[in-house]
Amino acid sequence: MTAPPTVSTEDVCCPGADCDLLPRGQAEDLALVFKALADPTRVRLLQYLAESQSGTACACHLPTALQISQPTLSFHMHKLHEAGLVDRDKRGRWVHWTVRRAPLEQVRGFLALSERVGAAPADGCC
Amino acid sequence: MTAPPTVSTEDVCCPGADCDLLPRGQAEDLALVFKALADPTRVRLLQYLAESQSGTACACHLPTALQISQPTLSFHMHKLHEAGLVDRDKRGRWVHWTVRRAPLEQVRGFLALSERVGAAPADGCC
Repeated sequence: MTAPPTVSTEDVCCPGADCDLLPRGQAEDLALVFKALADPTRVRLLQYLAESQSGTACACHLPTALQISQPTLSFHMHKLHEAGLVDRDKRGRWVHWTVRRAPLEQVRGFLALSERVGAAPADGCC
Repeated sequence: MTAPPTVSTEDVCCPGADCDLLPRGQAEDLALVFKALADPTRVRLLQYLAESQSGTACACHLPTALQISQPTLSFHMHKLHEAGLVDRDKRGRWVHWTVRRAPLEQVRGFLALSERVGAAPADGCC
């Protein structure tokens, strides 16, 4: 997955960013969301819910759809809920899970930094 | 952070998604990137690099900029590199790190699912 390092003999030291660091609190909030998504089953669960009507599905469908056991589902939904990625509500007998847009959009906003990568170098550096 | 569950007495069971699950391999690749970003220092490092000219900075600036030790920096850069989020190259004496756009754009593409959440319900469900 990683490219082999390139090596040149010319001694170059490119400057770092000339801007404020991302505030620690924001970085911590983002890291919590990333942590909640750091599991392929939870990634698939989130996508499944997002593709459901109104981003909501009854919990009863999830074990079969994801091919996981009920305890495994409960474990993963707890992680997603704890990170604020889903809302839980009970409709009669049935628990329903709904994707929350806000944290996903917050992460997308952060990842928009990829658009700033690769700008033309100035002064021959980088 | 989490909203209290809402409870209704009406027995409702909303259907799940009527589409294919995200392929397991794709979910695993995304989860690896999320895992690499599941740390506030790495989030800040990535942002710092992205804000640097051409998304590149000499490693020598990073401990001071991030207020971390050299061993801590090495640990975090190894994690980012392992996940394919940065490239490493040596320019004379100095190691340089560059953000890779592709994995960030892959994640942004996945998170675009947030735009599909909250569509109008049909048949009175959800």
